[in-house]
Amino acid sequence: MTGAGFFSSRWVSCPEHVAELSGDRLPAGFRAAGVAAGIKPSGAPDVGLVVCDSPGVSSAARFTASGTQAPPVLVCRERCELGALRAVVVNAGNANAATGRAGYDNAVRMQGAGALAAGVAEDRVAVCSTGVIGVQLPMDRVNRGILAAAHALSPEGAGAFAAAIRTTDAFDKRARLQARLPSGTVEITAQAKGAGMISPRFATLLVFVQSDALLSPETCDLLLSVCLKRSFERISVDGQLSTNDTVILQCSGESGVRVEPESEDELRFGEALDALLRQLSLLVVRDGEGARRVGRVVVRGGDQPTVGAAARAVADSPLVKTALHGADPNWGRIAQAVGAALPGTAPLALDIAIEGVTVCSAGAAAPHDADALAAAVAGDEVEYEVSLPGEGAESEVYFSDLGHGYVTVNAEYTT
Amino acid sequence: MTGAGFFSSRWVSCPEHVAELSGDRLPAGFRAAGVAAGIKPSGAPDVGLVVCDSPGVSSAARFTASGTQAPPVLVCRERCELGALRAVVVNAGNANAATGRAGYDNAVRMQGAGALAAGVAEDRVAVCSTGVIGVQLPMDRVNRGILAAAHALSPEGAGAFAAAIRTTDAFDKRARLQARLPSGTVEITAQAKGAGMISPRFATLLVFVQSDALLSPETCDLLLSVCLKRSFERISVDGQLSTNDTVILQCSGESGVRVEPESEDELRFGEALDALLRQLSLLVVRDGEGARRVGRVVVRGGDQPTVGAAARAVADSPLVKTALHGADPNWGRIAQAVGAALPGTAPLALDIAIEGVTVCSAGAAAPHDADALAAAVAGDEVEYEVSLPGEGAESEVYFSDLGHGYVTVNAEYTT
Repeated sequence: MTGAGFFSSRWVSCPEHVAELSGDRLPAGFRAAGVAAGIKPSGAPDVGLVVCDSPGVSSAARFTASGTQAPPVLVCRERCELGALRAVVVNAGNANAATGRAGYDNAVRMQGAGALAAGVAEDRVAVCSTGVIGVQLPMDRVNRGILAAAHALSPEGAGAFAAAIRTTDAFDKRARLQARLPSGTVEITAQAKGAGMISPRFATLLVFVQSDALLSPETCDLLLSVCLKRSFERISVDGQLSTNDTVILQCSGESGVRVEPESEDELRFGEALDALLRQLSLLVVRDGEGARRVGRVVVRGGDQPTVGAAARAVADSPLVKTALHGADPNWGRIAQAVGAALPGTAPLALDIAIEGVTVCSAGAAAPHDADALAAAVAGDEVEYEVSLPGEGAESEVYFSDLGHGYVTVNAEYTT
Repeated sequence: MTGAGFFSSRWVSCPEHVAELSGDRLPAGFRAAGVAAGIKPSGAPDVGLVVCDSPGVSSAARFTASGTQAPPVLVCRERCELGALRAVVVNAGNANAATGRAGYDNAVRMQGAGALAAGVAEDRVAVCSTGVIGVQLPMDRVNRGILAAAHALSPEGAGAFAAAIRTTDAFDKRARLQARLPSGTVEITAQAKGAGMISPRFATLLVFVQSDALLSPETCDLLLSVCLKRSFERISVDGQLSTNDTVILQCSGESGVRVEPESEDELRFGEALDALLRQLSLLVVRDGEGARRVGRVVVRGGDQPTVGAAARAVADSPLVKTALHGADPNWGRIAQAVGAALPGTAPLALDIAIEGVTVCSAGAAAPHDADALAAAVAGDEVEYEVSLPGEGAESEVYFSDLGHGYVTVNAEYTT
C-alpha cells in the first residue's frame, strides 16, 4: 500500500515540502486499470492500462541498454512519440522477448489495441511486457485483456494497475505523493515492478510515474534522466540487465501548476521525484528474490571509474551477498571484491567500515568490537563504506542479499 | 584419487601419448608432505610442503591480478627466484590476506621456515596461503607444521600434500600422468585446490605441477602461460577473483629427457600439460561450492572482445547458473545475459543451441523437442553454444551451477 510509511529507508528522507497520500487515486487527468486476462498461469491480474486524458500531456521514457531488447522496447523506441505519450499498455507473465519478427508484430498489435482502448493515436501508446522470455504472446488473451482494461479504467485504478504488472514481486511497489511547489500543489503517483534480473545500469524494470504538474517534454526528460541516475541506476539484485526494462514519466498538466526550467518549482518537483524514485528503487532491492536485507556500499576515493567499478563489484559479489544474507560481517569478502575490480593496484591501502565501525585500515584488519558489529549487521539495512587512496570521487550501489529463496525461485521455476 | 578416470570430462581427451598412473608417487626429484598443524579448526591437515631435490630445477609461476593480493603473493613476486623454485610451502585455513605489514612479515617468516625445512635458500621457496581473509596467521602453529612436514617429506607424498591444501573442496583434485615424448618418457603430477572465489581470469586458486622433464625456465614459463589460457583462465564458479591465487610448475630434470624449444618433445609435453590442466580446471568447476553440474558456453562470432564478454556474462549469470542447477533449459536467460553484455547492439540476431539442439535462431525461439532437451540438460555436463553475427572469433568458459549449497556454505560459515 501507499500512504504513511512509503519512506521506510533511513537512506531516503521525505523532503519537507512533500507529503504522503493514501489511496488508489491517480493525479488529475489519469485513469488506470488492471485485469486478469489469463496470461499468467496463476490467473492473477496480468494486463494493465494507464491513460492520460489530457491531449497536452508531456512525457519521457528510458529503456534497457541490452543488445537483446525485447520487441515492446523496440516498438516504443521506433514507433512512439516519447515526449507525448497518452497511454501505456502492459502485460505481465510473458516478456515478448527473443520472439523475433512475430514478437515485434505482436507488440505492434498490442500498441494498436491500446490505442483503440484509450482512444488515442498509436504513436502515443507505449507498450511494455514482462515475464518469461522466448514464448510468443497469446494475442487473443492480450487483446481481450486490453479491452477489459479499457472498460475498467478509473481515476482510482492505481492499485489494480500495480497488481497487474507484478511477476515474482512479493509486494506492490507504489507511492502517492503530494508536493507543494512555490506555484502550487501537485500530485505524483508511481508504480514499479521488479524483483529479479535487476542490474545497476539504467532502467532495470518497469516503472510508471504520473503527475498533474505542467512540464515541457524537455523538462520531463531532464528530470527523469537526473533522478534515474541516483535511483534505479544504482541498484542491483543480481547484476542482470533485463531485456524489457522501461521507465515512463507522464505529466498531464491538469493541476495548472507550471514547472518552468531552472525555476524553484523545477527544483522542488525534482526533489520530490528524486525521493520518490530512490525509495521506490530501494523497495525493488528489498523485494529482491529471496532477499532478507538491503546493503548499501559507498566507495570514496581518487576517480569516478575506480570507485564506480569497486562499488558494483561489491554489490554484485555472491560472496558479499551471501554474507549479508547470513548477517556475517565478513569484511574480507569486501576487500576481495574491491581488489578483483582493481587489478594491478596491489598492495591497495583500502579502509573498510561496516555500519560505521572501521574493520580494515590501510589494507589490514583493524581492532573492533566483533559482538557489537555482529548485532549491527543483523538489521534490515547494512551500510558498507570503502575508502580508496585519493579523494574526490564517490559512488554508491544498493543491493539485495543472496539467499536460498533466490535459488529456489530461479532453479525450480521458469521465470 | 588419481589413476584411471582422471580424464572424466567429454570436453578433454587424454592425448594418445599420455597414460594415467595411479598412486601417490611424485616424479623423480620431488618429495612432498602434508600435516595437521591446528590452523584449521577441524584439525584436518593444513600445512603442505613440496621440495625438489635437484639443484638444477626450472620453474614458472603465475599469480592473481587482484589489487588486494595477499602477502604470500607479494612475497613470491618480490622475494623469489621464480624460474628456479626448489620448494613450495603452503598453509590452508588462513589466507594471510588483508593482514598488512604484520601479514607480510609472517609470509616472510613462512618462507624462512620453508627454506630451513627444505635446506635451500629463501628465494627458492614459494609461499602460498588459502582460507579465511583478514586474520593473522598463528605463526607458532605454522612453524611447527612446516617442521613436521619437513620430517614427513616423501617421494610418495602427493596425496598427503593435496589433502593439506584443501579448504572447502569436497574432493582432492590431482593427477599423475606419464607422457611418452620422442626423446623419452616423463612423469607429471599436479595438485589443485579451489571450490569458491573462482573467477575466469588467470590463476584462480592454488595449483602445483611437478615433472621430471628437463626444461629451461623460459620453456616452463611459456608452456605454463599457454596452457593456463586454455584452462584455469576459462573457468568460473562465482566470478570472484581471489586474493591468493597461485600456479606453480616445477621441473626437476631428473628424467634426463630434454624438452627443447620448438621441438616435437615440447609439442608433446605441452599437449600433456594442456590436457592435465584443462581436466584439473574442470574438476575445480565440478567441485564448485554446492554445484551439481558443469556448464560449457562457447560463443562464436565477429571479434574476440565481443565473444569473450558474452561467454563470461553467460557463465557468471546467476539466472543461467540457477537454471543449470535446476536442469531447466531456460535459453531466454542465455539471450538476456548475452544482450546485457553487448549493450547498444539491439536487435541482435543470435543463435543459441543447448546440447546441440537449436533453441533460438536469429534472435527468436526455434521449434524443438522440449522433452528431449529437458532430458539432455539433466546430465552432469551441459553445453551451450551461442552464435553472434560475423565469424572468426571464439571464446569458451566452463562454469558451475548455483544451488542451495553455495548459499549454505557462504551464508552460514565464515570462509
